Amino acid sequence: MAGPEIEHLMQMLARLPGLGPRSARRAALYLIKRRESALEPLAAALAQVAERVRPCPQCGNFDTASPCSLCADPRRDDGVICVVEDVDDLWALERTRAFSGRYHVLGGLLSALDGIGPEDLHLPRLLERAGQPVVQEIILALPATIEGQTTAHYIADRLKAAETPDHSLRVSGLAHGVPVGGELDYLDDGTLSQALRARRPV
Amino acid sequence: MAGPEIEHLMQMLARLPGLGPRSARRAALYLIKRRESALEPLAAALAQVAERVRPCPQCGNFDTASPCSLCADPRRDDGVICVVEDVDDLWALERTRAFSGRYHVLGGLLSALDGIGPEDLHLPRLLERAGQPVVQEIILALPATIEGQTTAHYIADRLKAAETPDHSLRVSGLAHGVPVGGELDYLDDGTLSQALRARRPV
Repeated sequence: MAGPEIEHLMQMLARLPGLGPRSARRAALYLIKRRESALEPLAAALAQVAERVRPCPQCGNFDTASPCSLCADPRRDDGVICVVEDVDDLWALERTRAFSGRYHVLGGLLSALDGIGPEDLHLPRLLERAGQPVVQEIILALPATIEGQTTAHYIADRLKAAETPDHSLRVSGLAHGVPVGGELDYLDDGTLSQALRARRPV
Repeated sequence: MAGPEIEHLMQMLARLPGLGPRSARRAALYLIKRRESALEPLAAALAQVAERVRPCPQCGNFDTASPCSLCADPRRDDGVICVVEDVDDLWALERTRAFSGRYHVLGGLLSALDGIGPEDLHLPRLLERAGQPVVQEIILALPATIEGQTTAHYIADRLKAAETPDHSLRVSGLAHGVPVGGELDYLDDGTLSQALRARRPV
């Protein structure tokens, strides 16, 4: 019914996370009806990204510059490296403007179930970067899931094992607690008991 | 943080129906991480559609052929024209394989609220097509909303007014009733009472 070009576009759109077959059809029709204002600009944006964006060889962030603008920025603190699972976590942290150190993208988490071992993550480069004398702290900003915490413990062990008498590292993780704006009522027991144990003077 | 190219791609994706800012970020990252298997194929699919797909001058369907493959198919019945609001409704009807006549896409519905009048719809072409001697029936497959039904009544009146002694038209609408697989419990009163009034011998 819709020609093969339209069918193909729908299939490509349906593969995107968050779009099912139905919303892919709607998106395709939206684009076809707005050729000049939506379809061609999206095609151009994709071509630009395809041509110019590459992973940063240092931290794994995506950027047009190599090393990326975060690795190259001289105002950022070389003493702290924040380790994240993936680039979207890096983006989320950057949106907070609460961190001004460097990043390292692991590219995944250890998972026995999915057969992901240490050799599948960008670990050697992290250990190498952590060995630089200037680095004082590694923040493991990994998800508060079993896989995230397993990965954090594994990396902490590897970092400790690589320490030398002249160079010791602080290894930290994100605080657990009540989300800002969150009702206690809706929180799970684990978070609430962590928040209680880590209580702070007001 | 993410470069301007990536930000721009996220904005373009966030405009698609069904994608918010958050899912647009996820979709952008998905594409960037799969340059050869997802990003470039999507860009190519968009370029193909932009270059080749046009609205059919006859019925308003989108296709690479002009007139479209449905208008050109000699096996379809010229005697029945099914009027739909938009191309996705045409696609939905074609998926059922229950209709083998011709289509006519209105491109909208009458709406006093949105200031959409008869002159904003593809009506003249429909009246012209309906006037051909071969056409015997017009099916108004419009939504069961106030605007859909207002539009259906308006078109039915215009079609009746255009009838000549030599050429009369049957004008019909879709049946209302219990959706196939639907529980009575979950149906609204309007649908249920329509289904009861239009009951059929078993």
